[in-house]
Amino acid sequence: MRIKVINPDFGMSDETLRSRERMLQAVAKPDTVISMDCLTDTHVAIDSALDVVLAGAEIVKRAKQAEQDGYDAVVLYCLSDPAMVACREVVRIPVIGGGQASMLVAGMLGYRFSLLTTSHKRMPEKEESVRYSGVDPSRLASVRSIELPTDDPRHDIPDTIRLLAEAGRDCIEKDRAHVLVLGCLSFAGMGREVSELTGAPVVDPAFAAINMAELLHAQRLSHSRIAYPSPPLRHRSWSSGEL
Amino acid sequence: MRIKVINPDFGMSDETLRSRERMLQAVAKPDTVISMDCLTDTHVAIDSALDVVLAGAEIVKRAKQAEQDGYDAVVLYCLSDPAMVACREVVRIPVIGGGQASMLVAGMLGYRFSLLTTSHKRMPEKEESVRYSGVDPSRLASVRSIELPTDDPRHDIPDTIRLLAEAGRDCIEKDRAHVLVLGCLSFAGMGREVSELTGAPVVDPAFAAINMAELLHAQRLSHSRIAYPSPPLRHRSWSSGEL
Amino acid sequence: MRIKVINPDFGMSDETLRSRERMLQAVAKPDTVISMDCLTDTHVAIDSALDVVLAGAEIVKRAKQAEQDGYDAVVLYCLSDPAMVACREVVRIPVIGGGQASMLVAGMLGYRFSLLTTSHKRMPEKEESVRYSGVDPSRLASVRSIELPTDDPRHDIPDTIRLLAEAGRDCIEKDRAHVLVLGCLSFAGMGREVSELTGAPVVDPAFAAINMAELLHAQRLSHSRIAYPSPPLRHRSWSSGEL
Amino acid sequence: MRIKVINPDFGMSDETLRSRERMLQAVAKPDTVISMDCLTDTHVAIDSALDVVLAGAEIVKRAKQAEQDGYDAVVLYCLSDPAMVACREVVRIPVIGGGQASMLVAGMLGYRFSLLTTSHKRMPEKEESVRYSGVDPSRLASVRSIELPTDDPRHDIPDTIRLLAEAGRDCIEKDRAHVLVLGCLSFAGMGREVSELTGAPVVDPAFAAINMAELLHAQRLSHSRIAYPSPPLRHRSWSSGEL
Amino acid sequence: MRIKVINPDFGMSDETLRSRERMLQAVAKPDTVISMDCLTDTHVAIDSALDVVLAGAEIVKRAKQAEQDGYDAVVLYCLSDPAMVACREVVRIPVIGGGQASMLVAGMLGYRFSLLTTSHKRMPEKEESVRYSGVDPSRLASVRSIELPTDDPRHDIPDTIRLLAEAGRDCIEKDRAHVLVLGCLSFAGMGREVSELTGAPVVDPAFAAINMAELLHAQRLSHSRIAYPSPPLRHRSWSSGEL
Amino acid sequence: MRIKVINPDFGMSDETLRSRERMLQAVAKPDTVISMDCLTDTHVAIDSALDVVLAGAEIVKRAKQAEQDGYDAVVLYCLSDPAMVACREVVRIPVIGGGQASMLVAGMLGYRFSLLTTSHKRMPEKEESVRYSGVDPSRLASVRSIELPTDDPRHDIPDTIRLLAEAGRDCIEKDRAHVLVLGCLSFAGMGREVSELTGAPVVDPAFAAINMAELLHAQRLSHSRIAYPSPPLRHRSWSSGEL
Repeated sequence: MRIKVINPDFGMSDETLRSRERMLQAVAKPDTVISMDCLTDTHVAIDSALDVVLAGAEIVKRAKQAEQDGYDAVVLYCLSDPAMVACREVVRIPVIGGGQASMLVAGMLGYRFSLLTTSHKRMPEKEESVRYSGVDPSRLASVRSIELPTDDPRHDIPDTIRLLAEAGRDCIEKDRAHVLVLGCLSFAGMGREVSELTGAPVVDPAFAAINMAELLHAQRLSHSRIAYPSPPLRHRSWSSGEL
Repeated sequence: MRIKVINPDFGMSDETLRSRERMLQAVAKPDTVISMDCLTDTHVAIDSALDVVLAGAEIVKRAKQAEQDGYDAVVLYCLSDPAMVACREVVRIPVIGGGQASMLVAGMLGYRFSLLTTSHKRMPEKEESVRYSGVDPSRLASVRSIELPTDDPRHDIPDTIRLLAEAGRDCIEKDRAHVLVLGCLSFAGMGREVSELTGAPVVDPAFAAINMAELLHAQRLSHSRIAYPSPPLRHRSWSSGEL
Repeated sequence: MRIKVINPDFGMSDETLRSRERMLQAVAKPDTVISMDCLTDTHVAIDSALDVVLAGAEIVKRAKQAEQDGYDAVVLYCLSDPAMVACREVVRIPVIGGGQASMLVAGMLGYRFSLLTTSHKRMPEKEESVRYSGVDPSRLASVRSIELPTDDPRHDIPDTIRLLAEAGRDCIEKDRAHVLVLGCLSFAGMGREVSELTGAPVVDPAFAAINMAELLHAQRLSHSRIAYPSPPLRHRSWSSGEL
Repeated sequence: MRIKVINPDFGMSDETLRSRERMLQAVAKPDTVISMDCLTDTHVAIDSALDVVLAGAEIVKRAKQAEQDGYDAVVLYCLSDPAMVACREVVRIPVIGGGQASMLVAGMLGYRFSLLTTSHKRMPEKEESVRYSGVDPSRLASVRSIELPTDDPRHDIPDTIRLLAEAGRDCIEKDRAHVLVLGCLSFAGMGREVSELTGAPVVDPAFAAINMAELLHAQRLSHSRIAYPSPPLRHRSWSSGEL
Repeated sequence: MRIKVINPDFGMSDETLRSRERMLQAVAKPDTVISMDCLTDTHVAIDSALDVVLAGAEIVKRAKQAEQDGYDAVVLYCLSDPAMVACREVVRIPVIGGGQASMLVAGMLGYRFSLLTTSHKRMPEKEESVRYSGVDPSRLASVRSIELPTDDPRHDIPDTIRLLAEAGRDCIEKDRAHVLVLGCLSFAGMGREVSELTGAPVVDPAFAAINMAELLHAQRLSHSRIAYPSPPLRHRSWSSGEL
Repeated sequence: MRIKVINPDFGMSDETLRSRERMLQAVAKPDTVISMDCLTDTHVAIDSALDVVLAGAEIVKRAKQAEQDGYDAVVLYCLSDPAMVACREVVRIPVIGGGQASMLVAGMLGYRFSLLTTSHKRMPEKEESVRYSGVDPSRLASVRSIELPTDDPRHDIPDTIRLLAEAGRDCIEKDRAHVLVLGCLSFAGMGREVSELTGAPVVDPAFAAINMAELLHAQRLSHSRIAYPSPPLRHRSWSSGEL
């Protein structure tokens, strides 16, 4: 199968995109083709609800394009599942968000899970997101943030892993979590080590979303048209802008 | 006080906008100034989650502009509360969505309420919306739709009122609702008559939002910066597109 | 409009009542007339569920009298919303309780709120009260009490404000509250300063109830007769007593 | 043990009271002494939230008197559990309400239960009451009413039983209830026959409350002083009135 | 009445069984006959979900035998309520589990309760169990464990009581519990002293289950055949094994 | 990877087992080896909670054996997830139940789902099962049963499909389901056609569980040892019996 991964950040280098594809390929079936795009029309990186709003139009456009290009599924490479419902209305292939996929997988591994995020400023929205995920909200043990000194969690990966493990241990010991979820796609690939350091399974949304796409494809399942009906047919357009 | 009402539909005539302002003025304090804008950069009308996504960027831009122009509050003239969280992150004046405001007012008038919407296609999303409103989701008795023969609920207002009353009676008798909420801003101004025909109080989101803006302003309250923190400062922009 | 505020404490001086009316007038429309009564037949101050029970009969009597006297709304000046449901059964004008009104307003300002109360003895009942408010109980972050050295929160107002801010900061930092609610009407008027000291919006139930009365009146809304049906017509009376 | 049963209706004849005591005695231990009082200072019968409010003061007075007279428990002979929390604050012996006791017993007999009440006007309040009972509110399948032609469910007992069985069958077949609760103490003693006619266990609140009092007494348990703290010591009194 | 108590531990001495019967008799009616059996075919003690599974077949067999022997009720002497639903399917006499009975009684004594268990390893399952109990899961304040130095809570009873009181005080002060439940039947009989040391009512599941059996018997109630239908008639058997 | 599928029915023919393996292989990766066993020590088929109890010991034994034989995951081929928690305590490889896996997949495809089961007698337990699945219980739209004339849903497969589609349409139209789940593993392989007949996605638990095993294996995830700790080391055994 062919999966289009939409990374809702602007202007990533080709090299970075190819390296992410290789990382994802490691958990995919041999014959799964993974192609990641980033945003090119929208200068944005997802660090707020504002960013989710601004990225939305281009994400939907790219999801539609992916379907036209014959992709079998769309993965939104972000814990905030930006524009996920709109994409599901517009295309018939499965659209999988990293947030929903990882929380559902977490629900299979223990009774209570915690989310680890980048900054305390992201905590209210992350806590809120579990209400839409389909997972029982009373299963969320906590959201904790690592307060990174830099903006980029991938700048010093060993240090990020150390901070994730520290926060994760607090989730386990103070909040009684049984499972951890990496609450930002910038943490992709760090789950194994955080799991070894904390003793809890750690769900990596990047991987959860890819494998969930494969699962749905294998069973020829896609989203319910009753839940996500097609929008009325009409012309829709928007002008450029900045903020 | 001065309220900027953002109507997330494209290209309404000046006459229509002025007539809506007059309708809203009827419930406002004498010295409240109501100014309604519609979208001019985005060809869209809110009939799906897709439309909410597409309208988002312009709505936030307009909310920010309203604050710069000295408005005291922003009202989103839509039951879907499009881009509400993003607007709250960006401006410090209160941002009130018709959906949230009307459900909170409904919570004061009885134990259970129902939403009346335009089409069965809008029901799943409306039912979902109560989870973010702050109202106890177990208080939602039902969502019912009137299936209008035309696209425009204001084309034949007496007929729309008749259909709303019919659906409303089903909400009361079959779903045990105590209160009704007009689940689309196109029904604005029809609440009184639907109430007379059904015997239940009917909350009109257009009015609920205006008066809630006045309530917050009178008490000098606005949204919590802890819940809706400012996005990181950086340049954000988007290109024009169509779908 | 004319609002009858029923203060469920016994025997307040005329001077105190007039001063409370002036305080409330500050958030009201210019043409709103606010008239506060206290209890005169019942020696009680609301510090327990017992007090709520004892005050009930006189409160209902006063609500009925207010309607006969042409008032447009009744406000119960207490976070426990004493006899609110009974009053709603008996009169057709809106009856607004300080507890319900303030929690619904809090629900608009953030995802999670905390209540600040006078004593740890009041905490279980306050925590319980959110279940009836119509607000989603999972939005209550915590109830915390200031343990006042004196009985009267208005004896040393700056000190009460200091204690409220301290408890409020704990709600924000330890319980992840986004919004605070003054959980006792004796704290009326202290919200602004507590907000400045804590950085969170603070809902003042006295003000919330007054403005909610105005909101309902502006929209000619009142409580659902389906939820609060008229009691069967019959003679009801009670004898004096003490406890 | 000695149980004081407080029947919150006015002016029942001695003969009726003694007959109720005999009925209750049938489920009690041989050495349990049951003494029922009705209200004598308050002209009221519990048919609304108003009636609950008016009856409250006398009920608390009688509960306190019962404790002083050496009774071991107080039973409130009403599904609305009038003044239950206030009584628990005031006395240290167990205070058992028919509503709470019967819903907890129902929770032991199946996953879902329904309440049968006297009139559709009582349905909203009954449905609401499950939220305070301690039982999981999602276990309430429904509230249904029999619409009695007369005021008195005991006027034609076989007919009342027939109507209860009819409504009960609807609860089972349409609302998927597994257990029925007689939602009014006037139905006391009719449970066995309704159970035979419907095939579901029927909880009789009168009996549930008596046996729950015995259970608590056998284990020397009473209500938590942390949940129901003593009200501040002070003089409390009320004047006679009517409505 | 005659109650068969099934203790799901293997090979207890006759002396121990008789001593437990005497302990239970203390809260029972004089004419209640209590007969306790332990497991004899299954080498197991209930310290895990595994143990619950292994004990199941023999428990059901014993419950069925008890009914054939004319017992009036079965009590499962364990907080995990092992095989409770299966037993209810198979016999028509009431089957009462210590876990469900004690949580329902706790629900009558305060708004929030905590469970005290033997080891942190038992906490996740205990916390989960409240979801099936019929009690509102949001009433569970916490589960805390005493970490006994020995395997047997009855080896040094005063020390166990001291540890229970310590953990119980944490439940009250840190988790805001109003009521405590002894979360293991090995703590049977220790409730009174833990209550005196903590100031909260302490529910003893052993006693709660016995008295609940009496309550149901007095009212001739048993479990709903709708909730727990008879399994299809067919031969069922199993071979011996070990693990 | 190698998956051991445990079919909790007794004495299936080798031919049937191999045919089920081939059916499951169709959704699996090419290099996934699927090996299905049925019960041989326990005469039982899962048609009640009793059957779940009786099958438990052999299921755990087989799961442990599978781990020792080098299998990478265990799939419980049953919607009741028999002995799932016990298996997770005993082995370190993932143990996936058909019930939990299919409900979590359903949670990804729409807001509300319904379960289709074989008989109305299975409905209460199925409805209850959603509480432990990790999925938000308020997402369960309904459980409906087809009332098969024969015992075996595979006797006349086209007829079973017709009945499933009929019940499914009721779930969609009357209960507002968006997604259907085949609530019995005997329906395995019928999902595609039911989906075509109803227009809703249909989750087949047999397939969901296999692919979920692959997903966990690809990410080297297994269940949390904190949620499912190892039982205390000791000898455990049971004798043969029948019922």
